[in-house]
Amino acid sequence: MDLKSFIRDIEDFPRKGVVFKDITPLLLDATAMRKASNMLFEMIGETKVDKVIGMESRGFFFAPLLADKLNAGFVPVRKPGKLPFEKISHSYGLEYGTDILEIHTDSILKGERVLVHDDVLATGGTAAAVCKLVEQLGGEIVQFNFLIELAFLKGREKLQGHTVKSLMRY
Amino acid sequence: MDLKSFIRDIEDFPRKGVVFKDITPLLLDATAMRKASNMLFEMIGETKVDKVIGMESRGFFFAPLLADKLNAGFVPVRKPGKLPFEKISHSYGLEYGTDILEIHTDSILKGERVLVHDDVLATGGTAAAVCKLVEQLGGEIVQFNFLIELAFLKGREKLQGHTVKSLMRY
Repeated sequence: MDLKSFIRDIEDFPRKGVVFKDITPLLLDATAMRKASNMLFEMIGETKVDKVIGMESRGFFFAPLLADKLNAGFVPVRKPGKLPFEKISHSYGLEYGTDILEIHTDSILKGERVLVHDDVLATGGTAAAVCKLVEQLGGEIVQFNFLIELAFLKGREKLQGHTVKSLMRY
Repeated sequence: MDLKSFIRDIEDFPRKGVVFKDITPLLLDATAMRKASNMLFEMIGETKVDKVIGMESRGFFFAPLLADKLNAGFVPVRKPGKLPFEKISHSYGLEYGTDILEIHTDSILKGERVLVHDDVLATGGTAAAVCKLVEQLGGEIVQFNFLIELAFLKGREKLQGHTVKSLMRY
């Protein structure tokens, strides 16, 4: 089974000139989805993980499944105004303007080992912002784990010094 | 293990006078999360399910886990502008103004049996909107499945004629 055959290219989304990788055909197919979650899990190997972070919103599709397989807690990192409890935030530059990510202060304890999952590694801005949030809480990132890596955008370079794994590379 | 002890009340969120049920303490605890997903799964019983819908964003935490357990496909219902492929939308009234939900047209085939999961059943507006979307695609909703039901808001009344199950009731 070729998982890439379940990824659909959408031209000019979300804006002109961008080719978006639509993962919904993979989600729709129970066998493909199970294969993907098993392979994401296998990428973690024997690494001990206390918490799995998923980034809003598409990171939420697989992060709780990985947390379940790892017997770890699940931590959502969200856009501003969505998390209701005490939180810290980090703003980061986008191509146009800035974006902000938030995390609950009680979500990661000092010294905990954290796996960060998202659907796509593109420029790496989001992942680097999550890195700052985890460090601020005293956690240790043991792996960045992606379903898709858009290697030509060189997001990996923003995550130097970390283990970065991806299931499908373009 | 009392799952309700993992639900945190947040007063005046997202606006004054509302007591928000924060489920993140439950997500953080691997054992509580597994118990919750197992119990949500048990609520489905022997019902055959082809697709599991999760509503953006908190419905995404458990819906893919349920789809995995059921060997069913997972379908995200999203807010406007997030889904990249051909889609239909339904707008519905909120206390102030209206909101819109969207679903991909290829996500549910005619006659497919659909489970709809969300974290909270409140007034039922969102769930009723999803009902319209599924009917428009020719699917059959076999169960509405919620982690939490705010029974005093009577959301159930908007879903008459359907099976509505919830794990924790307030």
